[in-house]
This record gives sequence, C-alpha cells and structure tokens, in this order.
Amino acid sequence: MTTSLPYRSHYLQKIRQNRPLVHNITNIVAANFSANGLLALGASPIMAAAIEEMESVPALSNAVVINIGTLIGKEVEAMVLAGKTANRLGIPVILDPVGVGATPFRRQTVETLLKQIHFTAIRGNAGELATLADVEWQAKGVDAGEGSHNVVEIAQQVAKRYQTLVAISGETDVVSSGSRTVLLHNGSPMFPQITASGCLLSAVCGAFLAVADKEHYFNALIEACTAYAIAGEVAAQALKPTQYGQFAVNLLDTLGALTPETVEQYARVEYV
Amino acid sequence: MTTSLPYRSHYLQKIRQNRPLVHNITNIVAANFSANGLLALGASPIMAAAIEEMESVPALSNAVVINIGTLIGKEVEAMVLAGKTANRLGIPVILDPVGVGATPFRRQTVETLLKQIHFTAIRGNAGELATLADVEWQAKGVDAGEGSHNVVEIAQQVAKRYQTLVAISGETDVVSSGSRTVLLHNGSPMFPQITASGCLLSAVCGAFLAVADKEHYFNALIEACTAYAIAGEVAAQALKPTQYGQFAVNLLDTLGALTPETVEQYARVEYV
Amino acid sequence: MTTSLPYRSHYLQKIRQNRPLVHNITNIVAANFSANGLLALGASPIMAAAIEEMESVPALSNAVVINIGTLIGKEVEAMVLAGKTANRLGIPVILDPVGVGATPFRRQTVETLLKQIHFTAIRGNAGELATLADVEWQAKGVDAGEGSHNVVEIAQQVAKRYQTLVAISGETDVVSSGSRTVLLHNGSPMFPQITASGCLLSAVCGAFLAVADKEHYFNALIEACTAYAIAGEVAAQALKPTQYGQFAVNLLDTLGALTPETVEQYARVEYV
Repeated sequence: MTTSLPYRSHYLQKIRQNRPLVHNITNIVAANFSANGLLALGASPIMAAAIEEMESVPALSNAVVINIGTLIGKEVEAMVLAGKTANRLGIPVILDPVGVGATPFRRQTVETLLKQIHFTAIRGNAGELATLADVEWQAKGVDAGEGSHNVVEIAQQVAKRYQTLVAISGETDVVSSGSRTVLLHNGSPMFPQITASGCLLSAVCGAFLAVADKEHYFNALIEACTAYAIAGEVAAQALKPTQYGQFAVNLLDTLGALTPETVEQYARVEYV
Repeated sequence: MTTSLPYRSHYLQKIRQNRPLVHNITNIVAANFSANGLLALGASPIMAAAIEEMESVPALSNAVVINIGTLIGKEVEAMVLAGKTANRLGIPVILDPVGVGATPFRRQTVETLLKQIHFTAIRGNAGELATLADVEWQAKGVDAGEGSHNVVEIAQQVAKRYQTLVAISGETDVVSSGSRTVLLHNGSPMFPQITASGCLLSAVCGAFLAVADKEHYFNALIEACTAYAIAGEVAAQALKPTQYGQFAVNLLDTLGALTPETVEQYARVEYV
Repeated sequence: MTTSLPYRSHYLQKIRQNRPLVHNITNIVAANFSANGLLALGASPIMAAAIEEMESVPALSNAVVINIGTLIGKEVEAMVLAGKTANRLGIPVILDPVGVGATPFRRQTVETLLKQIHFTAIRGNAGELATLADVEWQAKGVDAGEGSHNVVEIAQQVAKRYQTLVAISGETDVVSSGSRTVLLHNGSPMFPQITASGCLLSAVCGAFLAVADKEHYFNALIEACTAYAIAGEVAAQALKPTQYGQFAVNLLDTLGALTPETVEQYARVEYV
C-alpha cells in the first residue's frame, strides 16, 4: 500500500531556517557535488579531513557524514576521531560505506568504523548493505550489483545488528529502524548514471538528521530520502533519458527550488 | 560615491593575450571548478601539490595561489616551499585562508604561512579576515557569518599588519592596500550558494596579478574582483534565484565571454 | 587521405553491453568528471588509490587507468602495484602522463612507472609525448605547448621504445602502434578549454580497451579517440565558442547519447 508521508514535510523547511552545518569527510569524486548539493538544499557544508581538526569541526557542526569513497589511509584515523567526537557531543553521524563489498580493505575499514563509532544511520546501495549483513551479493565495484536476498531483510538485519537506522538506495529505497520499515517509491533511473549521487544523498541525510530531534530521526530519514528522490524525478522531467550531465545540474537546481508541498504531493511511501 | 573603474579595464585583455600560468595548491572541493574558471577566463591553470615539485612549478608559473580548504597535513609543508619560491622569484602569491576562524588548526596553519611567506594578496570572506585581524566574529564553518565590526577597518588592519593587499568578498567587496581602500558594489546573491566560488575568485586574482606590474597590483586586484562579480551578475540574469547548478555552469560561460567593455560598463567602484 | 573508420564501430556498443569496470587512479581535478564521463559512456568507474586495495581493485576490473595529475607522493607506490597487478592479470593499463615535461619530479615518476609497468597505451598531448620521446618541446605547465617536431614521429618513437600504443591528442589526434599510425581529424577547439578533458579521454580509452581482444587494441584505441572527439563536436554544435561550462555538461550528455551510427558517420580517419 503506497501512501503519502507519515506527517507533513517539515524538516526541509527547518533546514532552510536553521542552515545546519554538516561536516563531511568525503572522497575526491564527491566533494564538490556534495558541497553544492548541501548548499542548494539550504544547509551549510564543511569539508574537512585533517586529523588535527576532527574534534573542533564536529564541535561546530550539527551532523557528521563519513564517506569511505577514496581512502588513502590516513583518513580512517580522522574518521574515527570525528565520529567519536560526534558521539560524545550527541550529534548524528552518518556512514556511507562506498563499495564496502569490493575489497577486503574497505570491509576492514568499515569494521573499524563500526566498532568505534555508533552511527545514527548507514546509507548505501543494496550491495553495500548486503556486505554489512554478511549476505551473498554480486556487487560490481562501487555499483549496486544484484543479489537474490530480500533487501528489506538486509535493512532490518543491519539496523538491528548495529542499533542504527538504515537507508538502502535503489529503484525502491528501503528505510528501516529494525522494527519499523518503509519502502520509498520515488526516484529516477538517472541517479545511478551520475557519480556521487549516493554520496550526496548521504550528505542530505546528514542535513535532515541535523535538524531533527532524536526521537524523530526515523521520520527525518524518510523525508531526506523521499525529498532527494523527488528532486531527481523533477530534475529528469524535461530531459532525454541520456542527458546525464544536465541531470546533475538540474538536480542542484531542483534541490534549491524544492518545497515541502512538492515533497508531500509526490511522496510515495509504503509501510511494510 | 559609486563610480566606474579607475582606469580602462586592461588586465582581462592581458590575461587572454599572455595566458599566464597560475599554480594552484588547492582543496578537493575547488580543484575542478578553479581550473575550469581559470581556463574559461583565458589563463592556464596548473594544480600541483607534491612537495617534490614546489620549486619547479612556481618557477614555471606567473602566480601561485595557496588555498587551505581541505588540508590533510602534508600540504602545509608544500605550501611553505611554493610560497617561499614565489617570493624568491618575485611572482605574486595569493592566500585564501578558507575557514581560518573555524578551528585552531586552521589558524595555526595560516600563522605558519604568514610567518614564512610574504603574500601579495589575501582573499577571503569577512569572517576569515576578521580572524586575521583578531576581531570578534560569528563565523559559521567556512561561511562568512556575521559580526559588528567595520569590514573596511578589518581590511585595512590586515593589509597593514601583513604588508599585503586584502580583498574581502561579500555583498559588497572591499579591496584595500592599507592606505587605499575601495568598495565594489557588483556581485550576485547566488555566489555564496555555490561551493568554491570564493576559491575560484582567489585563483582569478592570481591570474590578474600575474599579468600586472608590481606597482599596479592594487588596480589589478580591483579589476579581478570587479570582473568576477560582474560575471556572476551576468550569469544570474536569465536564471531563477534557486538555479544554483545552472549558475555555476553559466559563470564559466560568462567568464569565457566577458569583455573589457562589459567590465567597464557594469563596474560600480566606490572610493572610501 | 581521410576515410572512415577501418571497420564498423562496435566497441562502443560492447561497452554498453558489458559495462566494463574501469579502475582509475586519478587526480583531484579529474576524478568527478572522469567518473561521470565513464558512466555516461556506459562503463562503470571505480576510483581507488589506497595501496591496500591495489591488488584487489584491479582484480575486479577490466582496465586500469593511471593518471599522474596531482601526485602527493604516496600514490606512485599505489600506481606501481596496481599496474603490476594489471600486467599479471593481463588486463589493459593506460598511462596519462599529465604535465610530464613540466617538472623533473613528474619525469622521474613516469620513468618509475614505465620501468615497472608495461602499458597497453599511453595517452597524452604532444608536449607530454615529446618529453617521453626526449624531444625538445616548449610545453606550458600541463598544457600542450608547441614544438617543431613531427608529432607522428614522436608517436611512433614512443610506441616502439615502450612497446605500447600511443594516442596523442590535439587539433589532429595521432594514434600509433609503432608500425601502424593514423591521424584522426575529429574534435573541437573547446576541448583544451575545459579541465580534465584529456584525463577523461584516457579513462574512455580504458573503457574501449577493456572490451577489446588484445589483437584489436589498436582499432579499439582509434574508436575510443574518434568517438570521444565526435562527442565533443556534437556537444559544441549548438554552443557559442566560449560556452565552456555548458560544453562540459553537453559532453556528458553527448557521450550518453552517442551511437555507433554517429561515430561511423562523422569519423575522419587518415592512414599515414
């Protein structure tokens, strides 16, 4: 049963009012696009990865987003410190385990992070979350790939194991708290055709969680994924299906113009 | 009193003729956009940060632009060497102290750079320059923030203390040599909504100083800030106020098409 | 004598069918654009540079592309390991020797790479390849510059010396196996005006070689350079000559829409 949002969209509005500072430790592919996406949405990005400032930057910030996309090695230490600081301060921390299934090194890195940081939410594609659930999956590099397992079960399992919220992106998004799970039927087939569209969503999740109270994180995460997916739908509307370059541009434009009314009108949320 | 430029725009033309090589040590957010902006303007960017080539790259270059946006630690050493080399060779060096007020680490980094390098110009937002002037300011991460101090005084103070030119970007730009100060009334509210727009301006300042004689650096810096602000005005003309993605694209297009005539026609320079 | 392609375009189609995984070790300027270009073309990019995964990522991949654009030092070790792994596995490895003539450090780096890795192809501009041929050339930073030597001879010389294919980009592209050489008369003057357009071409070469049999690498490289140059021609068609920002966007759109028929129709290949 597909219905609307469980409440009126209001975190989008709150982002525009509060302009939360979102600290991103991210990769060289996504840095520019993530910063631009956060600015367009109405949040304030700070991209910082020097270990020397991994206590002071989270202390200024309303959320920390950790993305393992292009590690050189030293960032892991910085990520651990930033994540621990965020935990101590009680601000949300989001993990984007880019391509975690691709190599043992990425798997170990994510294990290190998961051992030392309590993540508020983990956002990735089905292949990445399947790896965290120890489920067989045929991933392809950093792309989602294919597997026979039930994506809902994967989301629930990871949410329970790590006491975290999980958002799995795909044709249908899955958001789960372990006990509660929703399917989100918005989106565009153009998303996986532009790089860092998942990384930007993780950053967007950071902005939404940054303005929500702890007890409403689940709703804020649903709104984040829904709003972003709808921005993609709107961005693609006037385009030919292969205009990937213009889609990335339009996505930023649409994030800038997105209203709570549009989010409410387009939202297709299914409770499972 | 708002008037036109103090002279006919001619550094823009000189950039197109000489194609100065501008060496940028910059961050992972700004690297692509800064390089594209310099190319569009007519300059020739080289982005290099390996310590092993921080003497040879400045030796090829007509200006060095140092940006502390996303330090990992090692770059500072490279920046010092590049800056010292530029000083020795007598080519202009520009500092962009991104988010210097945000963390003690950034403040120390900038202190290190200011001790060892004589900067021809420092380009930043009001919050960043307030930090260099030891003035109270409510910055927000790497964004400008707000403060009660007079921005003109801040510019003059920093210019005198560090024997440098200062360009402060904002709704009104301030350019000061310490003794001479101008206000620049061009620009677009869309600039702070796209990431790295300040970083690109610092790089653009590098290109303008690269083609100017030492005794005209002040005028060249005024033309740099004015031309860039006007490019933003023109780029925004046909856009809705939230089309941030397209604004970034149009800004590059406009930098490519910008003529001295347009700069002279739009320039709104106020002497204080 | 300018003729058409030596055969019907079919590697483009094969990329769309196989979605080869292309491992890129690249610089902070080109990372986003190269990933987006590969995705638009139909390939699957993975950008990874951590030494810890330089055996596992090539093992997943169908080609490895090594780009020395913005070295910090550690990447060279990672590049060597990735290249050796690719050689061992028999998958193609492409070198982009960005600005190799600009500094002794870059020259040494490329020498190190050439000693330890057998490259399937080297893709660069005339100045870069002239450096590898030990020929006098007036390069300008990372730009092509000018020289009096015959570019065809340079291509042949480097191809023979390093037992590799060579693709030299410029107003006319040259592709050589040492014994066989072709001139490619497609392209757009807007290419050198956008940053990383050469880096993306190297990545595109990786995608084409990834889907070709060893005995057809020469033809696949011709098709790669031709298809990319034609994408640029088409991307520029509706633009003013200074719309560099929009050209970068259109180039991605055009790579997404490019068909074998268009490649065959536009191709202007000259055998020498």
